[in-house]
Amino acid sequence: IQSKLPGVSTTIFTVMSKLAAEHNAINLSQGFPDYACDPKLVELVNQAMQDGYNQYAPMPGATFLKETIAAKVENLYKVKYNPDTEITVTAGGTQAIFTALAAIISAGDEVIIFEPAYDSYAPTIKLLGGLVKTYELAPPGYAIDWDMVKKLFTARTRMIILNSPQNPTGSILSADDMKALIKLVSGTDILILSDEVYEHLIYDGQQHQSVMLYPELKQRSFIVASFGKLLHATGWKLGYCLAPEKLTKEFRKVHQFNVFSVNSPMQQAIATYLQTPANYTGIAAFFQEKRDYFRSLLAESRLELLPCNGSYFQCASYRNISDEKDTDFSMRLIKEFGVATIPVSAFYQKGTDHKIIRFCFAKEHETLALAAEKLKNI
Amino acid sequence: IQSKLPGVSTTIFTVMSKLAAEHNAINLSQGFPDYACDPKLVELVNQAMQDGYNQYAPMPGATFLKETIAAKVENLYKVKYNPDTEITVTAGGTQAIFTALAAIISAGDEVIIFEPAYDSYAPTIKLLGGLVKTYELAPPGYAIDWDMVKKLFTARTRMIILNSPQNPTGSILSADDMKALIKLVSGTDILILSDEVYEHLIYDGQQHQSVMLYPELKQRSFIVASFGKLLHATGWKLGYCLAPEKLTKEFRKVHQFNVFSVNSPMQQAIATYLQTPANYTGIAAFFQEKRDYFRSLLAESRLELLPCNGSYFQCASYRNISDEKDTDFSMRLIKEFGVATIPVSAFYQKGTDHKIIRFCFAKEHETLALAAEKLKNI
Ligand SMILES: CSCCC(=O)C(=O)O
Ligand SMILES: CSCCC(=O)C(=O)O
Repeated sequence: IQSKLPGVSTTIFTVMSKLAAEHNAINLSQGFPDYACDPKLVELVNQAMQDGYNQYAPMPGATFLKETIAAKVENLYKVKYNPDTEITVTAGGTQAIFTALAAIISAGDEVIIFEPAYDSYAPTIKLLGGLVKTYELAPPGYAIDWDMVKKLFTARTRMIILNSPQNPTGSILSADDMKALIKLVSGTDILILSDEVYEHLIYDGQQHQSVMLYPELKQRSFIVASFGKLLHATGWKLGYCLAPEKLTKEFRKVHQFNVFSVNSPMQQAIATYLQTPANYTGIAAFFQEKRDYFRSLLAESRLELLPCNGSYFQCASYRNISDEKDTDFSMRLIKEFGVATIPVSAFYQKGTDHKIIRFCFAKEHETLALAAEKLKNI
Repeated sequence: IQSKLPGVSTTIFTVMSKLAAEHNAINLSQGFPDYACDPKLVELVNQAMQDGYNQYAPMPGATFLKETIAAKVENLYKVKYNPDTEITVTAGGTQAIFTALAAIISAGDEVIIFEPAYDSYAPTIKLLGGLVKTYELAPPGYAIDWDMVKKLFTARTRMIILNSPQNPTGSILSADDMKALIKLVSGTDILILSDEVYEHLIYDGQQHQSVMLYPELKQRSFIVASFGKLLHATGWKLGYCLAPEKLTKEFRKVHQFNVFSVNSPMQQAIATYLQTPANYTGIAAFFQEKRDYFRSLLAESRLELLPCNGSYFQCASYRNISDEKDTDFSMRLIKEFGVATIPVSAFYQKGTDHKIIRFCFAKEHETLALAAEKLKNI
């Protein structure tokens, strides 16, 4: 059998979580909490099942949830999306990313991505016959020079993928970035896929620069959001896609044949839960406290901390400690120190190695302290 | 924006369920139960959430569930699948179908399908740049002439999609069909996508002719299964794909970038529930009773019943009642008689109209009786 994705193996998150389990290491690799989600939310799912929400939800999502999403978005960003025609509930952020790409990218279309990048973007584009145009960003700031982006434009440029707050670096786009981007795309028909699954995890009072805040971007953008990150329940696999009607129409054509519809009782439960804005407005403070705690702990190690402006990921350089490749270094961290991380080279198609590893700090203080204790000795 | 699926609109199931709601009609269109799933199963989901199964499940599925699937399959079919390398848990049967096609079909590849067919097959193939080679079957038996299938073979034939028990017709493949199929594909590298989501719903003591029963087919097949149909919980969106290791490897490459993983607490709950074989062996008798009841009721109408050997769908011809197109007739059934069905022409890409409508009988006796009462007058 000839593979359509010959270069692809099992995603790094699966590999590292498996290794963590095998070596009984503290797992700060794959991004998920090690504490319980709100018991009220669990009770709401139970209630929804009791109430009989166990059959197919409507294909684009439960009306109640779509309306709740519209209200949340308007509350946070003062921007309107029409629940009927511009919001689609998905089986997680990844499915939204895949579906948006599948709806748009045809053979030969070019998509610009910024690396390090979430590892689904490039293979999904290739699977669809698209061409990946990669702009590699560099630590510590991972800043984008928009003149360099412009140089990647060709007649076949179909889409740009943004990701802010960024996985794995925790960097965020600024208002200046957005203005530069607007200049670049104005007058073109280039679309944007904006992966904003960490939208709520943004620190130090900074404002999340969602593409929806800019009409010139909003009208050409698929925005991908995740309930897993918001609700500390990554295993429920629920998210959504916001897009103007003409893009949503194409998105749903694929969505209906990809998954048809998504988990019904959990949609009801999440909608009820999000009626209370306090259930989604406190999350930045919650994670900022964890970030600060983890950074203060790591400050005692020989690792150099990179900035973390958003997401629940903290990157660190070990260039003063070792010359090893980051894959080797992270392997050694698991085996010798009992801490699992992600080597950031895994987020570059070329495996570019800046000697940086990524920690997930969506963990109990106890877990973070335990890990830091072990890392003191490296 | 240029659509990749210009001919595609909203799936018929969504359209008819929406119309049913708007006209307050009895909804026998989209296939789902109108009664509760087992409260024990609901309690198990609740328990799994309490137990903390709320973060990412392993990418290919929870180990416990994959092992349970292997045991169920071996129990029912005396066939072995390796949970580690040959079983992948999916966000429903539709996602498994989409993912298998996405993993295999490249531009120019030809896929043979039998119509009437579930409406995701053809657009998914086209989305991937594949070519759909269609063999239209005709009522009342919808039998396959395998010599005609052979005539569709070309050097580009990559895959054949089977669906037994068949949606929408309720027809099933026989052992003779399987033997004819083996003859056709032996010595070729044609793959099979076998949509067996109604595997458990097979009547009158007949044996489900799974492709897994035939080694020559098993080794080249993706088999798609659904928990929604088995557990009366279509809205939970869980299913799985069985395939030999070399095919599963390709399947998972796409699966991990399509949805990454699927609902964690529900995987645990279903695995626990299926430890008790009685929870999955009684289902054929349960639905056969409904089929017989519904057929006895419809026998009093002027509709002509087609055979129903499997699935929870009953087809009926109205050719002695009206010359209308089936889309018009089913529209009139909703508006004038208050019963929603599916016009079977929706399952043909060309809209071929044999004057047949499809009823779903996965309903309370009361619902079926109420619908039949209304249908007496047509
Ligand atoms: C979808 S699994 C990966 C979770 C995650 O987003 C990450 O660890 O980067
Ligand atoms: C996935 S929605 C359609 C349900 C179904 O299988 C049918 O009604 O045919």
